[in-house]
Amino acid sequence: MAAKEYDVIVIGAGSTGENVADRAVKGGLRAVIIEADLVGGECSYWACVPSKALLRPLQALTAARSVAGAREAITGSLDVAQVFARRDSFTAHWNDKGQTDWLNGAKIDLVRGHARLDGERKIVVTEKNGSTIDLAARYAIAVCTGSRAAIPATPGLAEAKPWTSREATSGREAPKRLAIIGGGVVACEMATAWSRLGTKEVTIIQRGPRLIPNCEPFAGAALQSAFERRGVTVLTGTTVRRVEQNVDGDVELSLDSGKTIAADEILVAAGRRPQTDNLGLETVGLEPGSWLEVDDSMRVQAVAGGWLYAAGDVNHQALLTHMGKYQARICGDAIVARAKGKLDSSPAPWSRYAATADSAAVPQVIFTEPEVAAVGLTEEQARARGITVRAVDYEIGRVTGASLHADDYTGRARMVVDTDRNVIVGVTLVGPSTGELLHAATIAIVGAVPLDRLWHAVPSYPTIGEIWLRLLETFGL
Amino acid sequence: MAAKEYDVIVIGAGSTGENVADRAVKGGLRAVIIEADLVGGECSYWACVPSKALLRPLQALTAARSVAGAREAITGSLDVAQVFARRDSFTAHWNDKGQTDWLNGAKIDLVRGHARLDGERKIVVTEKNGSTIDLAARYAIAVCTGSRAAIPATPGLAEAKPWTSREATSGREAPKRLAIIGGGVVACEMATAWSRLGTKEVTIIQRGPRLIPNCEPFAGAALQSAFERRGVTVLTGTTVRRVEQNVDGDVELSLDSGKTIAADEILVAAGRRPQTDNLGLETVGLEPGSWLEVDDSMRVQAVAGGWLYAAGDVNHQALLTHMGKYQARICGDAIVARAKGKLDSSPAPWSRYAATADSAAVPQVIFTEPEVAAVGLTEEQARARGITVRAVDYEIGRVTGASLHADDYTGRARMVVDTDRNVIVGVTLVGPSTGELLHAATIAIVGAVPLDRLWHAVPSYPTIGEIWLRLLETFGL
Repeated sequence: MAAKEYDVIVIGAGSTGENVADRAVKGGLRAVIIEADLVGGECSYWACVPSKALLRPLQALTAARSVAGAREAITGSLDVAQVFARRDSFTAHWNDKGQTDWLNGAKIDLVRGHARLDGERKIVVTEKNGSTIDLAARYAIAVCTGSRAAIPATPGLAEAKPWTSREATSGREAPKRLAIIGGGVVACEMATAWSRLGTKEVTIIQRGPRLIPNCEPFAGAALQSAFERRGVTVLTGTTVRRVEQNVDGDVELSLDSGKTIAADEILVAAGRRPQTDNLGLETVGLEPGSWLEVDDSMRVQAVAGGWLYAAGDVNHQALLTHMGKYQARICGDAIVARAKGKLDSSPAPWSRYAATADSAAVPQVIFTEPEVAAVGLTEEQARARGITVRAVDYEIGRVTGASLHADDYTGRARMVVDTDRNVIVGVTLVGPSTGELLHAATIAIVGAVPLDRLWHAVPSYPTIGEIWLRLLETFGL
Repeated sequence: MAAKEYDVIVIGAGSTGENVADRAVKGGLRAVIIEADLVGGECSYWACVPSKALLRPLQALTAARSVAGAREAITGSLDVAQVFARRDSFTAHWNDKGQTDWLNGAKIDLVRGHARLDGERKIVVTEKNGSTIDLAARYAIAVCTGSRAAIPATPGLAEAKPWTSREATSGREAPKRLAIIGGGVVACEMATAWSRLGTKEVTIIQRGPRLIPNCEPFAGAALQSAFERRGVTVLTGTTVRRVEQNVDGDVELSLDSGKTIAADEILVAAGRRPQTDNLGLETVGLEPGSWLEVDDSMRVQAVAGGWLYAAGDVNHQALLTHMGKYQARICGDAIVARAKGKLDSSPAPWSRYAATADSAAVPQVIFTEPEVAAVGLTEEQARARGITVRAVDYEIGRVTGASLHADDYTGRARMVVDTDRNVIVGVTLVGPSTGELLHAATIAIVGAVPLDRLWHAVPSYPTIGEIWLRLLETFGL
């Protein structure tokens, strides 16, 4: 049977794939999306959405507890069953009907099954019943298969069937003792969640010297001391040597320090692997299991003909849902423009066909207590790029709006300024409710708004946003 | 006795006056500030700070109540005594020791007393004991005396000794029935506060057709329906004809509709008057009691010699603490620059000597439930200025970050775009916790960041900030 032809074939119906297909269809192309699991992807069912659903009730309660007058009204405790029920509702009980309805509305075809590349512009989909469907792409195939948790080769670890982000965000029973391998975002968010949802002993085992190592050092330090204050153990510079299972079902982790830790559950949050193992990459000259290197328009340059794209985690640019969606918009628009002959050469930076923000302004909010919000470069990252920078810090608790927001508010902001260009290249905010402050920094960086002009962007009094004024004053404006 | 000479004399030690003096001193000038009341001014003791201190506990509790899982923990009610105690602590119990310490640290001299202009560059201060001090300014006098509540000439109203913003923010006993004349920010914030702090019947009597009339119409409509849902009566298009006091101490307000309203207290929040009545304006050719018209550097142009400045409410540009402080920074820097001969002509727009944001990007957060945050022009205001605009709206509750933030989140965002310049000229956000989202809009407007570039400012998922993506998509990007 001849292959069914589409203008665009998208592999993976996570938020990235959905957005690629949507932009393609909006641009007048016919698109199909292939998904082996739930339509909606990791973010909707096993990452951002359920994790934030677990975290928001805790955060709302902490916020109310930190204001005299409100605090006294909280005489009960978190209703853990309700927290789980709310989380289940946000994941639509792991049912993708809502998402497939959305695909229908967006006029995107869906094929359920496992997709493999089969040479240039060709795909073979294996359905659940084993039958196959041949598809061909007139213009482009976009790989949006994302990533999965990497499991270190630690002896005994895989055998212990540890939690990954999937189980940690979808679990409904708090293990009594939880050992977390890793110290990044997933580790810190899930330590926050489970330590409040009933787990008595949470231990974070981080190989590196600090938590959330991609952020400014003070952010990890703030998280670590907050964890320790709340009884979460943080072991930095520590590696798990071996995992052993006991007869009663619990596990023992032997650390390089010689210590052992007993736990009822292990969460592995030690990095990600691309979902490209069984994708037929070898049929187009790429290595299975590798990250897919792309140009600014999300095109895989190693493949001749320019028909293969990769957006989202799988290209290793910025493993965040919102950046995947951003790349998807760029990618979908670039596919359309090229199909119409409107984009010959490489797209210009900051044009609608170049994901320039990938290298300049990746924002991230970590929903811990305190929250961590960061965009752009840390001071160290900027210096490593050879940028002449000056960084200024300010204690957010000294801002009236922050002290009104929460009694004894503590937090810290850092602004990293490229002193040659007189623009901000990075901002980090650590403290309660800093997440929604971040977009101002993202716009300042992306817009390359000079400090002299930012001086006229007046923060409303008394909001926490007045941190902006203080940072600029501290810088010397 | 010869007048004591300073480089700069500032009349009024509110936040505006303090900032003018501070910038002058930082620029190397000697400055004195004259204050007849508490150092720190209206904002610190009888406006923003105490009002937000009253409102934040309510808001924190509402936020926690709107998240399943947290909601169940709130089995008690707001502790009103604690709310007042917290408010009192934020106003330092109406003691200005902290503020005078700050003046000392900033090397700003303080004279307590009532200041009157006495011709060019001259001031006479009358101290509490009746003695006078003569002061002369080498370079500049800055009037930062602010504004006070205007009391309409309604028969019987003044005699009823109504509350103004001062009493409403500093009160410690909830009147059983509160009638509020006015429908602007003070009226709406205080209706929100007192209806939760024990007042059983709150009635807002607004002459105009809607609440917060300077904002987008949907903002006032959202507030009105929220008030009505919570049992606060809102009468729009209604004028008070007459106020009568009864023997038992309560008052009766006769409305033009023929209705009467009985109340235990009246709050007048129907606009502001400049504090310039008894300031000696006539000695420099100005009219006592008038607003002081200024240029972009805060200089009163009607006075020859260019030595008289007016910053803050008194110049009627933007009656907001943060805009007063902004003008103060501009004003203080302009005084220094002119003293040093570095600023001859009119300052360029957006330079550090021109308060250009006064006309382009005045932000305001109204701490009601829902919050209202707005900056720049409304659609109507933009059209009135002859700008070709297109406005797009988006229901904030449809953003995942908002629905995670609060169950049944409802809110609305409007972005007003100058389609000739392809830049945003106004943004309005109505909904829970929208206040901290505003600064992103302020930076976008002030920075004149084109929409095509804003497309690359990726909001973090899942924050409420994703409203930015939705607005741009709705606009057609």
